[in-house]
Amino acid sequence: MSESSTPTTMVIFGATGDLTQRKLIPGLFSLFCKGFLPEQFAVVGFSRTEWSSDEFREQMLAGMKALAPEMLNKKAWPDFARHLHYTPGNATKAEDYATLQTFLTELEGGAANRLYYLATAPNFFEPIVTQLGQAGMVAESIEPAVWRRVVIEKPFGHDLASAQALNQIVHNVLDEHQVYRIDHYLAKETVQNLLVFRFANTMFEPIWNRNYIDHVQITVAEAVDVGHRAGYYDQSGVLRDMFQNHLMQLLAFVSMEPPTSLQADAIRDEKVKALRAIRPLSPAEIARHTIRAQYEGYSTADGVAADSQTATYAALELYIDNWRWQGVPFYLRSGKAMCTKTSQIIIQFKEPPHMMFTIPHDQPIPANYLAFCLQPHEGFHQRIELKEPGREVKLRSIDMDFHYEEVFHPDHVPEAYETLLHNALDGDATLFTRGDGIEAAWQVIDPILDAWQSAAAPPLTTYKPGSWGPAAADELLGKNRRRWRHGCLDEATEGK
Amino acid sequence: MSESSTPTTMVIFGATGDLTQRKLIPGLFSLFCKGFLPEQFAVVGFSRTEWSSDEFREQMLAGMKALAPEMLNKKAWPDFARHLHYTPGNATKAEDYATLQTFLTELEGGAANRLYYLATAPNFFEPIVTQLGQAGMVAESIEPAVWRRVVIEKPFGHDLASAQALNQIVHNVLDEHQVYRIDHYLAKETVQNLLVFRFANTMFEPIWNRNYIDHVQITVAEAVDVGHRAGYYDQSGVLRDMFQNHLMQLLAFVSMEPPTSLQADAIRDEKVKALRAIRPLSPAEIARHTIRAQYEGYSTADGVAADSQTATYAALELYIDNWRWQGVPFYLRSGKAMCTKTSQIIIQFKEPPHMMFTIPHDQPIPANYLAFCLQPHEGFHQRIELKEPGREVKLRSIDMDFHYEEVFHPDHVPEAYETLLHNALDGDATLFTRGDGIEAAWQVIDPILDAWQSAAAPPLTTYKPGSWGPAAADELLGKNRRRWRHGCLDEATEGK
Repeated sequence: MSESSTPTTMVIFGATGDLTQRKLIPGLFSLFCKGFLPEQFAVVGFSRTEWSSDEFREQMLAGMKALAPEMLNKKAWPDFARHLHYTPGNATKAEDYATLQTFLTELEGGAANRLYYLATAPNFFEPIVTQLGQAGMVAESIEPAVWRRVVIEKPFGHDLASAQALNQIVHNVLDEHQVYRIDHYLAKETVQNLLVFRFANTMFEPIWNRNYIDHVQITVAEAVDVGHRAGYYDQSGVLRDMFQNHLMQLLAFVSMEPPTSLQADAIRDEKVKALRAIRPLSPAEIARHTIRAQYEGYSTADGVAADSQTATYAALELYIDNWRWQGVPFYLRSGKAMCTKTSQIIIQFKEPPHMMFTIPHDQPIPANYLAFCLQPHEGFHQRIELKEPGREVKLRSIDMDFHYEEVFHPDHVPEAYETLLHNALDGDATLFTRGDGIEAAWQVIDPILDAWQSAAAPPLTTYKPGSWGPAAADELLGKNRRRWRHGCLDEATEGK
Repeated sequence: MSESSTPTTMVIFGATGDLTQRKLIPGLFSLFCKGFLPEQFAVVGFSRTEWSSDEFREQMLAGMKALAPEMLNKKAWPDFARHLHYTPGNATKAEDYATLQTFLTELEGGAANRLYYLATAPNFFEPIVTQLGQAGMVAESIEPAVWRRVVIEKPFGHDLASAQALNQIVHNVLDEHQVYRIDHYLAKETVQNLLVFRFANTMFEPIWNRNYIDHVQITVAEAVDVGHRAGYYDQSGVLRDMFQNHLMQLLAFVSMEPPTSLQADAIRDEKVKALRAIRPLSPAEIARHTIRAQYEGYSTADGVAADSQTATYAALELYIDNWRWQGVPFYLRSGKAMCTKTSQIIIQFKEPPHMMFTIPHDQPIPANYLAFCLQPHEGFHQRIELKEPGREVKLRSIDMDFHYEEVFHPDHVPEAYETLLHNALDGDATLFTRGDGIEAAWQVIDPILDAWQSAAAPPLTTYKPGSWGPAAADELLGKNRRRWRHGCLDEATEGK
């Protein structure tokens, strides 16, 4: 029996939740329409709510109608819906796993692969993994050849110790190759494209180092405020919510050495190496190199303590202690209630070593940069200097840009979760984080979390909702005559 | 008296010729409209035809109406025409220089700068320069501060010996700083922009060398055949007509080391260094590294010998023996009656050293290139590899491009002759060739001219009018698995 003809079951824990309706089902439906799902494929929802399979299908259809009505034009929904099933149960109760296992084996009628998708709150990750292990539901076999994989949603731990503990539990039950830890940022086309951009082109890698790069900026800005997540958010804060996962992953992709192959572990080895090379910050350095801020009005949100010290914005200045990056600052920032939703990476090159061209007095010498835009418009910009037409040699900055949506039909750019599901079903773990990678990222964030609770914390400043964040973040760069670039946005916003 | 308020006279030798009507007068008129001419400015036409100043004005107006009617919308023509004068004379007769001098001193009524523009056939360059010297018309002075400059049209010599002889005569009469040798290719915005592109950006110079560049291509293709110039052309051929001047100058700008400043001699020093570093070709190497061809039907043109061996197309493989370029081939080609009119420079980078991405079998690994387009659409393209959207890592070549006309209003891109006149009037010799530069270029071309007359000549092949030239030129690159790129033209023409 070839792998492709082996039946495959995807079990969704937390199937009644938002993520299932908003991301997993649309992603699976899209894969189904493209013929990318195995021939014999079943989705089994598992959650405490007492739905029938028909109710599950109705709920998912209602979700599609509300959230992705354009996809229903494909008319394949009824065919797809036949693959949806549901069985209720409590993910913390051993006996309900017996029920689930019975339901699955009856449905499968023989050897089948299984993808367990943990779309639950993080406190369920540990019991589910443990119970799956105890129920013998994660044992793979060679004859017949079937696999068992577990996709674990984020957040993976809330600090280094808890991440280590969760990894310990996961590894008690599963081999690392069975574990797919989600960071959906990794599935953005532009992030994947960073690999291609860096390593399939010969023009960029030679200048991708401390000799030519002045600094790197990574911005993940959100326009929304904490909204209804305020209660959760106040316990978490921006470092856990955005930095430990998304920004650390982006940093790793930007800074890592060329892997020897695209094999998942070759890439993840290099990412972990980069993360482990980030210079640990002493409490005194944390006071100087980190900025924490809260948007005005945050503490009045429902679920937030009136004297909350939780940062909704942070900016970090990090260094990577290796041959390639020694001395190059990596400026990372992220916040809620900012003026726009954007994720971008700026590679700021140094100024030309010898400037022979006339530029107006008191103007900085323009230096090239590359801007990778992850959202809202995936693509990148290359800022270079040209000569203005005319007899005199006057410089003019221009942007050469590329946007995916202008070249590739939007249908062809799969949504992140579609890519992740496809990869997990296919056994490609490249875009998932490995246990040691998660811990390496926590290793960077943990001391900052600690210092921010201590007397060594930088002052908690505030910023206006709808702004680019606190003035302190501008000073973090400004003290070295640098400034944040809004490279993916209209030049108008740069105030030039 | 400040220099700007000193009256300036431009004397055009060969004022009744094509160039005056087509290029010089429109260029001057455009400078006039922009307020770039000195306040007291006179143009004096000088030629054998017995025109009056009024007839000269009428002829020039008729030319403008026929060739640049859109410029006449500016209504400034009558004001401009008042600055035009004419005095007839024979450029080879000493007595006519006395007449000319009298005409000029009366017109000027005092100290004045003079720009002598030799818009004549090349056999007049020597007598005019000599006569100007003998008539004492090129002596500059410090008090009053007036300059004398001589613009010499191309071609400057028809081989190394004649160029050396002409330089000798020129230097008998003039200091090098008074001499402005025209190569209008140098005034194209894109050529000037090459300087800015290379030296105002930090992204390109680090990879602008043998470590990263596989080879360079320079193409100057003409769609027209020899037409009414056949008689002249048959004596000249493509090496003299295009290579010694245009292609050698482009090669110099692409390959030269960074000058210490934009001062004309700083740039020209570096250009000459590059040209002198071109490896001399032995006759045996000329047989292998040069291609000569004639378009089918050339020998039937009026004025062409039936058994003409004149090449209308050539392709050369040259090497620059210095630290930066050792081992990097420079492929130069130019021809008449080709499929399109285009001038372009391709910087072809090497393939990535380690290819980790899947590409279809029997496809070459795509390598980046930069294409500088001089015409028809000035600008440049950067060919890079991106990831196609989708789960699999598939490469797709895309072009990031920049075209001057899309960013700058065409009014703002001055025509080459306008720029050259402006510079000559301003004393900026950057875009003119220096005597040693001309000789260095002839030093490359002369041995090829000689070898092509000898038994060691490569075979004279033919090519179809409207084609990209002879098959032999494709083989010149093909033997090293390279191919000519048509980087500035539609990708469709690459047959991909």
